[in-house]
Amino acid sequence: MSEFFDNVGKIKYEGENSTNPFAFRFYNEDQVVLGKTMKEHLRFAACYWHNFCWPGSDVFGGGTFDRPWIQPTGDQLALAEQKAKVAFEFFEKLTVPYFCFHDTDVAPEGASLKETIANVNHIADIFEKEMDRTGVELLWGTANLFSNPRFCAGAATNPNADLFAYAAAQVKNAMDVTNRLGGHNYVLWGGREGYDTLLNTNLKQEGEQFARFLKMVVEYKHKIGFNGTLLIEPKPQEPTKHQYDYDTATVYGFLAEHGLEKEIQVNIEANHATLAGHSFHHEVAVACSKGIMGSIDANRGDMQNGWDTDQFPNDVPECSLVMYEILKAGGFKTGGLNFDTKIRRQSVERDDLFHGHIGGMDTMARALLNAAAMIEDGSIEKFKTDRYATWNNDLGKSIMDGKQSLESLSEYALGNDIDPKAVSGRQELLENIVNRFV
Amino acid sequence: MSEFFDNVGKIKYEGENSTNPFAFRFYNEDQVVLGKTMKEHLRFAACYWHNFCWPGSDVFGGGTFDRPWIQPTGDQLALAEQKAKVAFEFFEKLTVPYFCFHDTDVAPEGASLKETIANVNHIADIFEKEMDRTGVELLWGTANLFSNPRFCAGAATNPNADLFAYAAAQVKNAMDVTNRLGGHNYVLWGGREGYDTLLNTNLKQEGEQFARFLKMVVEYKHKIGFNGTLLIEPKPQEPTKHQYDYDTATVYGFLAEHGLEKEIQVNIEANHATLAGHSFHHEVAVACSKGIMGSIDANRGDMQNGWDTDQFPNDVPECSLVMYEILKAGGFKTGGLNFDTKIRRQSVERDDLFHGHIGGMDTMARALLNAAAMIEDGSIEKFKTDRYATWNNDLGKSIMDGKQSLESLSEYALGNDIDPKAVSGRQELLENIVNRFV
Amino acid sequence: MSEFFDNVGKIKYEGENSTNPFAFRFYNEDQVVLGKTMKEHLRFAACYWHNFCWPGSDVFGGGTFDRPWIQPTGDQLALAEQKAKVAFEFFEKLTVPYFCFHDTDVAPEGASLKETIANVNHIADIFEKEMDRTGVELLWGTANLFSNPRFCAGAATNPNADLFAYAAAQVKNAMDVTNRLGGHNYVLWGGREGYDTLLNTNLKQEGEQFARFLKMVVEYKHKIGFNGTLLIEPKPQEPTKHQYDYDTATVYGFLAEHGLEKEIQVNIEANHATLAGHSFHHEVAVACSKGIMGSIDANRGDMQNGWDTDQFPNDVPECSLVMYEILKAGGFKTGGLNFDTKIRRQSVERDDLFHGHIGGMDTMARALLNAAAMIEDGSIEKFKTDRYATWNNDLGKSIMDGKQSLESLSEYALGNDIDPKAVSGRQELLENIVNRFV
Amino acid sequence: MSEFFDNVGKIKYEGENSTNPFAFRFYNEDQVVLGKTMKEHLRFAACYWHNFCWPGSDVFGGGTFDRPWIQPTGDQLALAEQKAKVAFEFFEKLTVPYFCFHDTDVAPEGASLKETIANVNHIADIFEKEMDRTGVELLWGTANLFSNPRFCAGAATNPNADLFAYAAAQVKNAMDVTNRLGGHNYVLWGGREGYDTLLNTNLKQEGEQFARFLKMVVEYKHKIGFNGTLLIEPKPQEPTKHQYDYDTATVYGFLAEHGLEKEIQVNIEANHATLAGHSFHHEVAVACSKGIMGSIDANRGDMQNGWDTDQFPNDVPECSLVMYEILKAGGFKTGGLNFDTKIRRQSVERDDLFHGHIGGMDTMARALLNAAAMIEDGSIEKFKTDRYATWNNDLGKSIMDGKQSLESLSEYALGNDIDPKAVSGRQELLENIVNRFV
Ligand SMILES: [Co+2]
Ligand SMILES: [Co+2]
Ligand SMILES: [Co+2]
Ligand SMILES: [Co+2]
Ligand SMILES: [Co+2]
Ligand SMILES: [Co+2]
Ligand SMILES: [Co+2]
Ligand SMILES: [Co+2]
Repeated sequence: MSEFFDNVGKIKYEGENSTNPFAFRFYNEDQVVLGKTMKEHLRFAACYWHNFCWPGSDVFGGGTFDRPWIQPTGDQLALAEQKAKVAFEFFEKLTVPYFCFHDTDVAPEGASLKETIANVNHIADIFEKEMDRTGVELLWGTANLFSNPRFCAGAATNPNADLFAYAAAQVKNAMDVTNRLGGHNYVLWGGREGYDTLLNTNLKQEGEQFARFLKMVVEYKHKIGFNGTLLIEPKPQEPTKHQYDYDTATVYGFLAEHGLEKEIQVNIEANHATLAGHSFHHEVAVACSKGIMGSIDANRGDMQNGWDTDQFPNDVPECSLVMYEILKAGGFKTGGLNFDTKIRRQSVERDDLFHGHIGGMDTMARALLNAAAMIEDGSIEKFKTDRYATWNNDLGKSIMDGKQSLESLSEYALGNDIDPKAVSGRQELLENIVNRFV
Repeated sequence: MSEFFDNVGKIKYEGENSTNPFAFRFYNEDQVVLGKTMKEHLRFAACYWHNFCWPGSDVFGGGTFDRPWIQPTGDQLALAEQKAKVAFEFFEKLTVPYFCFHDTDVAPEGASLKETIANVNHIADIFEKEMDRTGVELLWGTANLFSNPRFCAGAATNPNADLFAYAAAQVKNAMDVTNRLGGHNYVLWGGREGYDTLLNTNLKQEGEQFARFLKMVVEYKHKIGFNGTLLIEPKPQEPTKHQYDYDTATVYGFLAEHGLEKEIQVNIEANHATLAGHSFHHEVAVACSKGIMGSIDANRGDMQNGWDTDQFPNDVPECSLVMYEILKAGGFKTGGLNFDTKIRRQSVERDDLFHGHIGGMDTMARALLNAAAMIEDGSIEKFKTDRYATWNNDLGKSIMDGKQSLESLSEYALGNDIDPKAVSGRQELLENIVNRFV
Repeated sequence: MSEFFDNVGKIKYEGENSTNPFAFRFYNEDQVVLGKTMKEHLRFAACYWHNFCWPGSDVFGGGTFDRPWIQPTGDQLALAEQKAKVAFEFFEKLTVPYFCFHDTDVAPEGASLKETIANVNHIADIFEKEMDRTGVELLWGTANLFSNPRFCAGAATNPNADLFAYAAAQVKNAMDVTNRLGGHNYVLWGGREGYDTLLNTNLKQEGEQFARFLKMVVEYKHKIGFNGTLLIEPKPQEPTKHQYDYDTATVYGFLAEHGLEKEIQVNIEANHATLAGHSFHHEVAVACSKGIMGSIDANRGDMQNGWDTDQFPNDVPECSLVMYEILKAGGFKTGGLNFDTKIRRQSVERDDLFHGHIGGMDTMARALLNAAAMIEDGSIEKFKTDRYATWNNDLGKSIMDGKQSLESLSEYALGNDIDPKAVSGRQELLENIVNRFV
Repeated sequence: MSEFFDNVGKIKYEGENSTNPFAFRFYNEDQVVLGKTMKEHLRFAACYWHNFCWPGSDVFGGGTFDRPWIQPTGDQLALAEQKAKVAFEFFEKLTVPYFCFHDTDVAPEGASLKETIANVNHIADIFEKEMDRTGVELLWGTANLFSNPRFCAGAATNPNADLFAYAAAQVKNAMDVTNRLGGHNYVLWGGREGYDTLLNTNLKQEGEQFARFLKMVVEYKHKIGFNGTLLIEPKPQEPTKHQYDYDTATVYGFLAEHGLEKEIQVNIEANHATLAGHSFHHEVAVACSKGIMGSIDANRGDMQNGWDTDQFPNDVPECSLVMYEILKAGGFKTGGLNFDTKIRRQSVERDDLFHGHIGGMDTMARALLNAAAMIEDGSIEKFKTDRYATWNNDLGKSIMDGKQSLESLSEYALGNDIDPKAVSGRQELLENIVNRFV
């Protein structure tokens, strides 16, 4: 087969002053930043679904894109093979070191679950070869438990035990495939684990089902010796009215309730943060503070629209703060920066896929550079440390060590007639300092 | 002193057809519903702060109300005494069985913490007499840890250990006063426990401070033998950009993380639900499902405005679903329905306070009647039970009992070639059934 | 062909106490309210698109519904004929007096515009017969200028003059068909008349294009003697990031700017109101106050979700206020209440379509009864009239008659040392009065 | 009087590499950009109200700031004189060329309107001297018609004709004072021109009142020969539930309806844009496209909070697009960039006022530089021009010239069997180009 993106070659770094739309201006994969290469820091991944399975349709209109392997009829497995070739051509030209997929992205669903599993494994064989050929690795795999009509009321949290079993079987296979492809993580996104109306929903029952499902996933991971990280991707709503994995704090609480907080981390999507009423920075900072920062879906939303627009990140200041949190927390371990991104429905040219990703990668690379500079400068961190200094004095330590009570502190306060005053939080000054780096 | 609300007498129940604006149409305190009187079910409380301490000001303008005890100068303690008289006149005429207060609502802050505490206790003496005289009880007390400038960066989660001690002393006193007044609950609202900017905030440190504070409160409760319930009131933001007690799920997760989920429940405010992106019904249903449904602040927001408008509840259908959840969960124990409500700034007549509360109480009384009818009818509950029936069969039970694994379920699914199909969730039908009762 | 909805007969009115899920409890078409029958007042319409052309898909999953005429391949015109039969079976059983359609709903797009037009007219022939047979009339027709990929950048406001011509041809045909079917209105919904990014958009140019297009539509209406009303349906966003017909105030302003405010009215959708940050009541009240209240799409949104959920109306209090405004403004003329509604994706049974519509129709019928009672009572209107009484005194009239200036009023104010005070707006009291009727 | 900001001297430009928190890094007032100095381009103004009249209070707590001239009692006029001195010290040190004020910001309200007017004029006398001494000019004046309780139901749109007269007198004086101080603009912000509930509101009546008021303002402007521009500041809500000047499109429509679109322009506030569901860029682009872009309040909101946070602008990419629109539209004429900004309540140090403004000014200066570079590059503009090229061909021109009808275009489309296809909107590419400059 000839090349699909025939007017695009391998994307190269040309430096900040380049005006070549097919070159990186900041992403220089071998450039060392704080002791690691950019490639090692950023661990970019492209996704299979929006890039190769989505025709450019939306709720109000059909597909606009040129994706010849998407056909209503014909040999679906052969089309899936063609799609796999194009996908790896894309990954290779884009120079992303990783990709991500759902089971149903890569292969057609068969007439039975058995056939579906066979189809997925057939394409996985092709992936093995393509990964070997190109060096592209699998950042994470996942099972699609939300598109097929059978999942319209959820998978793990649906009201039918048989469907729970079906979902378990599908996840088992997706974990097996992820494992054999050397996947670095396995992701669970609960797209329909939630409710459309409370009138037909037993929240307690569904919560217990979900916990049971997660525990089985953890057990199976250990059983098969999967070395990757298990990740939950929070999202507050859409398609479901309310989703249980609402945001990072909710997911962490659920994990802690069930003793899973050491076993499962989060895959944070920028767009899901904003849908939940949070900043992207917030979600990442919460995850870092709880020790469950796993991986990132870097796609942003539109602050004026209330659905998942999945746009490429292009806000360098915001992403710089995100990378700052991640670097301070030690950087990515098994996780990385995945583009769970959609080009706009109007972006009908084949090469628009490249423009989106190049812009996104450059945005994150620039954010990395900015974050590193903030860390090297140290002003923000120093301010923060100084601000909490009293927690290292005798009173502060005795409180945190559990040696104080309301009574003892009341005695202290009244005995010393303390009258603590407001201290400037210096928000404007700190924002100005950040703007020196972004 | 003569009466303040001199054109209003005791509010009486006159039945649904009454057009008397100073009568109840649904709230008939002695009417028995599902085995308890309305008074016992609803446990209405009026709040001290918005009714008697707020002059009708907002961010863009000064007070509009006729509250003669609010004066910039003069004998503040004498003014507080006058306010207490008016408050109990109001409670009595309104026939609410409970009231709620913050320490700083009832008495002026003194030159020192000691003096503040003395002032609060001085008014508490008056409260004891008024409570005795009128039979009005204390639903809950709380400490205001957010209005004084010293708390501008929070109380338990502020960066200064001394201020933590100050807050502890204030809470100790508020708990003592609540206890001696026979309060049924003690509430913690973390109005500034959160952050304005992540740039100056150590989330992990502040989280640990907050857990430590809560543990001290729990210990002190047991020490003094306070029989009431401890409650956290979730709110996602405002005044702070982000508040840690974001919503019920977040609070529950935090409690579970720290082993406090049996010690602390939630006080859910309708308006805070909507600010957090949830329905009022959702927040109550989550709390019921987790067993932490404590009490309610019934004030609603405006769905088109993004701040805490604190309006009186008037949406009977929504409140009916809320009461339905509460009744199904066994009804209020120590909690009740508090009106943390503001009349509109334009409602400048003294008697507007009555119109607001009468409407709110009638809304909730009607909701109670509707909820009881839905429970007696049983259709909704039956639908829900039937929907989850498979969880009582062999497969369902074996899953929930932890006897299944991804592998065993995969074997089951493949071995039986199962192909579970979508089943109608019947949302429209269920909504129609609800509309038969609301 | 046998019946598609074979377990459902004609829906009948059975009264408020009926528990038959296939009966109306409030919609009694011949019942007279304020001098007209309910049927004449409400002018219900069912829509063709969501009911018969949408398979139950969403952005995250495929169709769940049983719609045998939706097939990727096969004789599309024959399938469209089958669909038409089922649609009229539905309209007849539901007893809606009207239906609505887009050109592309009813017939497949052909290989050329000519063929498309022929297909639409072929089905229109069938419609004529079915309308004749059943008595169902056409509330409005419209052209779909947003689903086909060619319209991805808009129709009238797209950057390509040829596409403008194409859209004009399509609208001409849709108007012709609407006219020959005796349609009571013709609707323009600018689903992609807006922008995805300002970076590629010339707002001024597109505004002028849109005005030009509307003027041509007005001219053509008069030319062909179409007696119906032209309607624009405002929507703020989705699918497009920003849509020009944002809300009623914006549309009215645009019409006034171009002298079209007597020629075009609005078709207000409840869901679009909430997406624009307004209440449904607000949008209707604005339209009434400007004299452009044309017709209603009664489908509501979910207040917690930021996209067009298109649910059936079930909020009786809100709809009562909407009907109150409409009645006060003289009721519907050519417009009516269309259900541009979607059953939930989980509502996979054929008869769920009935449950949705029955609930929606009963909600609006009950709203009509409530609104009529409020009008007969007169309290709200009297309060409002009294509140503005000063505008009928000498000063008020001289101001409105243009006889006063800043100077003359300043002289009056200073000369009389006027000191006007706040007067209670009585919002809580008024809300209580409304709750007597809803 | 000694200096109030005694540790801060005049702020100087030190260049991009400066780490001096009291220096500009980008705002170099004499630096020439596209033929004008930065000072001429940006026309910065500081506001009187938030800087000098607001004590740092919010809805949940009292003032935190050190503003000794804010006292509940004492000689209010003397305190106002002190405030004026501090204000001009601030303007001078900050090197802003302009300031802005409401009448009630600068002087205490008196016992009568006459006395209030006298007070304002007394301070205006001081302003004249200070303006003369410092060279600081008045960007705009305005009347506060929303803080005093009398305006709780609006001013021009309130239900009491006497209050309309009172407001007229106050505006007359504010215009007189603005005129004698050489103000460059006069602003109307309708903070309470709207409604809290539709139940007590006559939209049509209030709309007519508002139009009448605006016409009197226009007449008076011409009468007194005021050379400045009249500006309306749109805001969608807060304090009022709904405000009539919702957004720029709504305001423009209202002006067009009443023939005022040549007389009145808009003062766009970034924060009000986001409250209305728009981007700041959108509001500015709409105003430019309609020719009513007057002036800017550069304060931003918080995308996660639903109220007017009035923060300093710090988002360089967003502000660059705003400046790009403004430059393309010819730059500011009489308008400028006002900071209607609040430092955070925690920013309790006197010099925090400087940090906020320095950051805001540098953000806008950097945005100016970026915008100028985008204009000099020309890529974005060229793309846009090319995209609309067909509107300059025969067909396009004949459409816009009104020579085509639906019929003639239908004939053209069918006769030529046209089949226009989607063309890439290149959003991702354009966003990448912008990121080369920001
Ligand atoms: Co997403
Ligand atoms: Co994602
Ligand atoms: Co509350
Ligand atoms: Co609240
Ligand atoms: Co819609
Ligand atoms: Co619609
Ligand atoms: Co402003
Ligand atoms: Co503002």
